[in-house]
Amino acid sequence: MEKFEINILGCGSALPTTRHFPSSQVINFRDKLFMIDCGEGSQLQFRKSKIKFSRLNHIFISHLHGDHCFGLIGLISTFSLLGRTATLHIYAHKDLKMILQPQLDYFCKGMTYDVEFHDINTNSSDVIYEDRSLSVSTIPLKHRIPTCGFLFQEKPALRHIKREMIDRYSIPIAYINCIKNGYDFITEDGETIPNDVLTSDPEPTRKYAYCSDTKYNPSIIDQIRGCNLLFHEATFAESDKKRAEETFHTTTKQAASIANDANVKRLIIGHFSARYEQEELLLDEAKTIFEETILAKENLKINL
Amino acid sequence: MEKFEINILGCGSALPTTRHFPSSQVINFRDKLFMIDCGEGSQLQFRKSKIKFSRLNHIFISHLHGDHCFGLIGLISTFSLLGRTATLHIYAHKDLKMILQPQLDYFCKGMTYDVEFHDINTNSSDVIYEDRSLSVSTIPLKHRIPTCGFLFQEKPALRHIKREMIDRYSIPIAYINCIKNGYDFITEDGETIPNDVLTSDPEPTRKYAYCSDTKYNPSIIDQIRGCNLLFHEATFAESDKKRAEETFHTTTKQAASIANDANVKRLIIGHFSARYEQEELLLDEAKTIFEETILAKENLKINL
Repeated sequence: MEKFEINILGCGSALPTTRHFPSSQVINFRDKLFMIDCGEGSQLQFRKSKIKFSRLNHIFISHLHGDHCFGLIGLISTFSLLGRTATLHIYAHKDLKMILQPQLDYFCKGMTYDVEFHDINTNSSDVIYEDRSLSVSTIPLKHRIPTCGFLFQEKPALRHIKREMIDRYSIPIAYINCIKNGYDFITEDGETIPNDVLTSDPEPTRKYAYCSDTKYNPSIIDQIRGCNLLFHEATFAESDKKRAEETFHTTTKQAASIANDANVKRLIIGHFSARYEQEELLLDEAKTIFEETILAKENLKINL
Repeated sequence: MEKFEINILGCGSALPTTRHFPSSQVINFRDKLFMIDCGEGSQLQFRKSKIKFSRLNHIFISHLHGDHCFGLIGLISTFSLLGRTATLHIYAHKDLKMILQPQLDYFCKGMTYDVEFHDINTNSSDVIYEDRSLSVSTIPLKHRIPTCGFLFQEKPALRHIKREMIDRYSIPIAYINCIKNGYDFITEDGETIPNDVLTSDPEPTRKYAYCSDTKYNPSIIDQIRGCNLLFHEATFAESDKKRAEETFHTTTKQAASIANDANVKRLIIGHFSARYEQEELLLDEAKTIFEETILAKENLKINL
C-alpha cells in the first residue's frame, strides 16, 4: 500500500508544558509532505523527526491562535537559509498574510523562494488542494474565531486488470488503460466482455480527518464518516465540561461520540489542556464511548 | 553570597539542530530574573528549567535576527494566558516594536498586562537598566545588523562594620549606615576614627558579559575586563575563519583571545553553527588560547 502516514510533531494546547509542543502534524502521502498547523517549535520537532524538510510544499493552518501558527516564521526563515527554491503554499484564513508578510519582509530579506498564501473560507467544505492521488477539503468547525479542520482523501486508484484475461481475449496494450478506468472490452468477434470480468476492485481509498480546535459539533459527522483515522481535539476531561463549553473546546467523551457516530475506524485525541498531568485518564474516558481511541503524543507516527 | 546565576535556555545558531535551541538565557540575580535573547522555543525551555515565569520583568534583545527574537510573541502570549499583571520591559532595537506590536494587537486581545518597549542604541555603552544592586549596560558589537551585548554588573555592597568597634567607640545606631557608606566616625572627645579601622571590605562585585552575535572585535575588551564570566559567541571553528569573517561571526580562538586579553575569569562559548556535530573540537581549540573555557549547553546553570 502507498504511504499515508501521520506524524505528530506537537499535541499540547496554548500553555507550554514539559510534556508537549503546541499543535503541528506532518502528513506523508506517497512521500509528498503536508503540514497541518505550525505551533512554536514545530521546525525543531520537524528536524528531530528526520522527515525531509525539502519535501514539504503545503501547509494548512486551522485557525489563527498562536499555538497553531507561531512556528511559521521560524520554519519559513529556515527554509530560506537552506536555499529552498520551490514555492511554499500556505492555506489559512486571509488575516495570516497581513500578519506574516511584514515579518517576512523584515526578517527574510533575499528570500530564495516564494511563499504563496491561499485564503480559505472556514464556513464551507471546499476542496482547497488537489493532485492526481489526493484531495484536501476544509471541515467547518466551531471555535472562538474562524476555524476549520482538514479532510485528506486518497483518490480511487485504477482498477486492477487480471493478467490472465489479457491473454484470454488478446487485449491490445492500447486498451489496457481504458479497461483499468472501468470500460468494457469488445473482441474482434464483436463480443462485449464486461469490465468486472476483466478487472478486480482497487485498494479501498483512505481518509484522514483533522478537527481542532472546536466545540462539540456533530454537524461534521457526515463529512468525516468512515474515516480510517480521525484526529479530534479533546482539550478537557468530562469533569471540565463547563470550561469546554465556555472556551469552545471538546471533552473526551464528546470527541469519542463524534468518532462513534461517524463510524470512523480509529480516533486519536490531542490538544490536551496543560492541567492534566495524567493523560491516561483522558484516554480511559474516551474509551468508554469509543474503544479504538489512542492518545496523541510527540513523535508518534501512524500508518493508515 | 547573593544569587547571580546564568541559565542557558538555548545556545544554537540560526539553523535548527536536534542538539540545540536558538539563543536565550535567563539571569537570576537575587531572585529577579532577566532574559537575554528569546529564540523560538525559549518559553518551552523556560518552563522546563522550572524557573518561575512570574519573576521575569526585563528582556534584553541583542539584535533582530530571528534566532534571537522569534520566541517573544509566544512568551508574551503565554504570560497573558497566565493572567500576568506586572509590566514587561523589553530592551531592543527600535524596529522590534514596529514588528511585534501588530502581532500583539492581533493575537493578544485583552492582554492582562503592559509590554513596554525601550529602544537601545547599539553603538554606545549605555546603562539601560539600573536598580539598587545591579546595572545592565550595552556593549557595542559588530554584526551584519545593529547588535549589542549586555554587561550585568553587581553594584558594590556596603562596607562591613566590625561589631567590636561599635562597642569600643560607643557608636550610636544612627551613624552606622554612614559608616557602612565609608564615612569616618568622630567620638565625643573629638577623636577621628578612620573608616578603615571601623569596617572591612564588602564582597567583591561580580560581572557577567554576554557578547553575541559579533565578528572578532577587540574594542570590547576594556568594557568587559575582569568579568567573572564572559559568554562569547564562537559560531565557527578555526578552519572556517573565512566563513566567520564573511558572516560577521567569531571563531573559537578569536573568542578565547578576547577572554584572554580582557583577563576574564571564565569563558563560555556558544551560538554554535549547525555544521559541528562534535563540539568538543570547538572547546579544544578555544582552550589552546584560554584554559578556563567551557561549552554552553541547554539547561546548564552557572553560579558566579
